Amino acid sequence: MTYKYKSPLAPKKINKIKAIAGVDLYTFSAGLYNKHRSDIALFIFNKPGSIAEVFTKSSIKSHTLNWNKKNLKSRTVKAIFINAGNANTFTGYQGVKSITELAKKISSQYEIPINKFFVCSTGVIGEPYPIKKILSAISQKKSPNKDWLNSAKAIMTTDTFPKGITRSFKFNGVNSYITGISKGSGMIEPNMATMLGFVFIEINIPKTLLQKMLIKVTEDSFNKITVDGDESTNDTVILASTNRLIPNKAIKTLNDPQIRNFKKELKYVFQYLANLIVRDGEGASKLISINVKNAKSEVQAKKIAKSIANSQLFKTAIYGKDANWGRIVMAISKTYEAIDENKLKITFGNYQVTHRGAENKMLNKSKIKNYLKKKEIKIVVDLGLGNKTYDILTCDLSHKYIDINASYKS
Amino acid sequence: MTYKYKSPLAPKKINKIKAIAGVDLYTFSAGLYNKHRSDIALFIFNKPGSIAEVFTKSSIKSHTLNWNKKNLKSRTVKAIFINAGNANTFTGYQGVKSITELAKKISSQYEIPINKFFVCSTGVIGEPYPIKKILSAISQKKSPNKDWLNSAKAIMTTDTFPKGITRSFKFNGVNSYITGISKGSGMIEPNMATMLGFVFIEINIPKTLLQKMLIKVTEDSFNKITVDGDESTNDTVILASTNRLIPNKAIKTLNDPQIRNFKKELKYVFQYLANLIVRDGEGASKLISINVKNAKSEVQAKKIAKSIANSQLFKTAIYGKDANWGRIVMAISKTYEAIDENKLKITFGNYQVTHRGAENKMLNKSKIKNYLKKKEIKIVVDLGLGNKTYDILTCDLSHKYIDINASYKS
Repeated sequence: MTYKYKSPLAPKKINKIKAIAGVDLYTFSAGLYNKHRSDIALFIFNKPGSIAEVFTKSSIKSHTLNWNKKNLKSRTVKAIFINAGNANTFTGYQGVKSITELAKKISSQYEIPINKFFVCSTGVIGEPYPIKKILSAISQKKSPNKDWLNSAKAIMTTDTFPKGITRSFKFNGVNSYITGISKGSGMIEPNMATMLGFVFIEINIPKTLLQKMLIKVTEDSFNKITVDGDESTNDTVILASTNRLIPNKAIKTLNDPQIRNFKKELKYVFQYLANLIVRDGEGASKLISINVKNAKSEVQAKKIAKSIANSQLFKTAIYGKDANWGRIVMAISKTYEAIDENKLKITFGNYQVTHRGAENKMLNKSKIKNYLKKKEIKIVVDLGLGNKTYDILTCDLSHKYIDINASYKS
Repeated sequence: MTYKYKSPLAPKKINKIKAIAGVDLYTFSAGLYNKHRSDIALFIFNKPGSIAEVFTKSSIKSHTLNWNKKNLKSRTVKAIFINAGNANTFTGYQGVKSITELAKKISSQYEIPINKFFVCSTGVIGEPYPIKKILSAISQKKSPNKDWLNSAKAIMTTDTFPKGITRSFKFNGVNSYITGISKGSGMIEPNMATMLGFVFIEINIPKTLLQKMLIKVTEDSFNKITVDGDESTNDTVILASTNRLIPNKAIKTLNDPQIRNFKKELKYVFQYLANLIVRDGEGASKLISINVKNAKSEVQAKKIAKSIANSQLFKTAIYGKDANWGRIVMAISKTYEAIDENKLKITFGNYQVTHRGAENKMLNKSKIKNYLKKKEIKIVVDLGLGNKTYDILTCDLSHKYIDINASYKS
C-alpha cells in the first residue's frame, strides 16, 4: 500500500542517486498492489560481484533468507531480485517452491548461474506467494536502465518516499562511488539487520572483510533505530561490490589506510539510509534522537535508550507536543536498572528538565513548549553513573500510525 | 483527567459494592483536576488491621513506596490514604517531606499511630506534590461514610468507570466478605504488582501467610494483563484484613481447609479487578485474551504471550478488525524462541488460521471478518512443543489511545 501522503519529515529534495558501473537495473509491475506501481526491482551484475549480508534474528524467517543462505555460500552474486507486496514468510512449501521457480526463470532469462541469485521479499506475512503474477511480469523483455530512483520506488511498502543516496570519494586517485537504497517503514526494531537495505560499492575487498565491515556499520546505523519495536521476519541488509576497483595492495584488514575514506563514506551512507527510514516511520511527525550518556556500561545505556524509544506513552506525548518528561523517568525505571535519582539529568534540546531528583525549578515551561513544536527533538539522558553512551533514533506515535496499520491487510 | 466518554468494554452495570465492617470511608476534593471531582480516598480501620503489599519493580519508585516500606514493618494498618492527580514520583525532597506532613496530619486528626499510616499516589510523574491543597482539603471535618463506589471514583485517573466488586462466602458458618477496588488504565504492564488495587477481607490470617497469598493471587491476575507495555513507578496492590473473623483454629498454611472458599473468592475478586482494568485500557475497543499453549516451558509461553500482547502492529490490526495474523507470527518470531512452523497453530475464536507452516486453505475469510467485529477476541497460539501454558489479557491500540495520551499533561 502506498499513500499520496508524504511524511512531513521527508528530506526537502531527494539527492541524485548515481548509477554504479557494471550493474543493470530492471523494474516490473506484477500487480501486487491495488494501485498501479512497480513492485519488483532486479539488479543484474555484468561481472560476478561480492556480497555480504546481515538479516533478522527473528525465529520465523522469510523463506528467502534460507534460499540466500544455501545458495550464496560462495558469496558471489550475479542477480538481486526484490519484490514488495508479499513477504514470502509462513507460506509453507508453496513459498519455498516459488523461489526455485523464480530462480530458474531469472537464471535462464539473464544467463546467470542459479547459485548466484539473491532474493528478498517484503510485504504481508502469511499470504501465498504470488509466483504466477511475478513470473508473468518478469517475462517481459525490457532493456536495462540506470534509474536507481525507480528501483528505490519499486521496493516501497508503506513508505511515503523513496530512499537512496550516493557518495563519491577518491580511491587510489580515481573516483569511486557508494550507492545505497532502502525501505521502511513499519515493523521496525532491527537487530543485527533491518528492513531492506542494499548498498553497492566498487572496491574489491575480500569477502570475509566485507562481511565484517557490514556487521560493524549496521551496528552503528540500522541497529540504532526503532519505529514501533516490532521486528520484521524479513529484515535484510546487503553490501555488494562490483569489484571494479582493484587496490594497489590487497586489503587485509579493516584498518588498511587505502579504505579510510571509503569507510567514512560507507558509514555516512548507512546512517543516512537508517535516518530516512525513521523519517518515514509509519505516521511519524517528529524525528526523535535519544542519547543516553554516562552509563556504567553500553548494555545499560542501550537498554535504557531502547526502553524510552519504544515507550508508547513517551512517543504519544511527543506527538502531542506534551513535555511529559515523567514518562522518560517511567521508561528508565521499567528497565529495573539501578538509577541515582539525584544524578539523573534529562534534557530536551537545551532545556534541562530535571535537577536533583525532581523537576528543575529554573525550567521555562513556555520555552520548552515552543521547543516541542520543532520537527526534530533531541533528548539527552545523563545517568551520571559512568562514561558509556548509546544513541537511538525513533519517531513519535500518532493517529496516522493507527490509520495505516488498522487496515493494512483488509 | 477523567472523561465523559465511557469504555465500550465497561460492564453493563456496576455490581453493588458491599461495605466491610470496621472500615470508615472518607473522600475529599483537593482540586487536583481541572473539573470538580473527588481526588482523595481515605480508609480508617476501627481496630488495627493486617496488611500485605506488592509493588512495582521499577527502579525509580514513588516516594510513597519508601514510606510504606519503612513505616509498616509491623504490617499493621490503621489508615490508607490514596490521592489521584499526582504520583509523588521524582519529586525530590519536597515529595518526601510532604508524606511526613500528610502522615502527621492524618495521625492527629484521626488519632492514629504514625507508623500505621499507609499512603498511595497516582497521576503525573515529576510535578511537585500538591501538599498544601491536600492538607487544606482533608482539614474539613466530615462524617465517615460506607459508600465504597465513591472511593473507587476518587482514585480514578484516566479511568472511564469506577472499578469494584464484593464477593461473599461462608466462613465457619458466618457470612464473610471480600471487597476490592482498583484503578487503571494506562502505563500498564504490571510485574509482581500493578496500578492500584485495594482488597479488604475480614478473616484473621497470619501476616506472613497474607503476604504469600497476595503474591500468589497477583501473579494469576494483575500480572497477566497489559495495556501498553509501560510499567508504572507507582503500581501497588494491597490486601488488608480487619481481622473481624477469628478462625476456630489458627491458620498455619495456605492449604488450610477453613480458607478453601475464601481463596476461591479472593482469586475471583483479583481476576475480576484485573479484567476491569483492561476493559478500561486507554482507548480500548476490544478485549483480547491470548492463550499460548503447548510450549516447552512456562517462561517460553509467557515470553511469546507478552510479545504478542505488546505488539503495536498486532494491537492496531485488531482495532481495525483486520485478520492480519502474520503479525502474530512476527511477534512470536521476535522473541527469538525456536519454533516449528509446521506445528504452530494460530486460532482466532473457533477459526484456525494457520496449517502446516502456511495459511489454512480451509479458512473462511468472511466468517473471520465477522468474528473480528466482536468486542471480545480470543486468540490461541498452539506451539506444539510441550505442555506448558500462559494466558494474558490485553486490549487494542486505537486512535483514542493517542487522543488520551498526546495531551495528558499539557
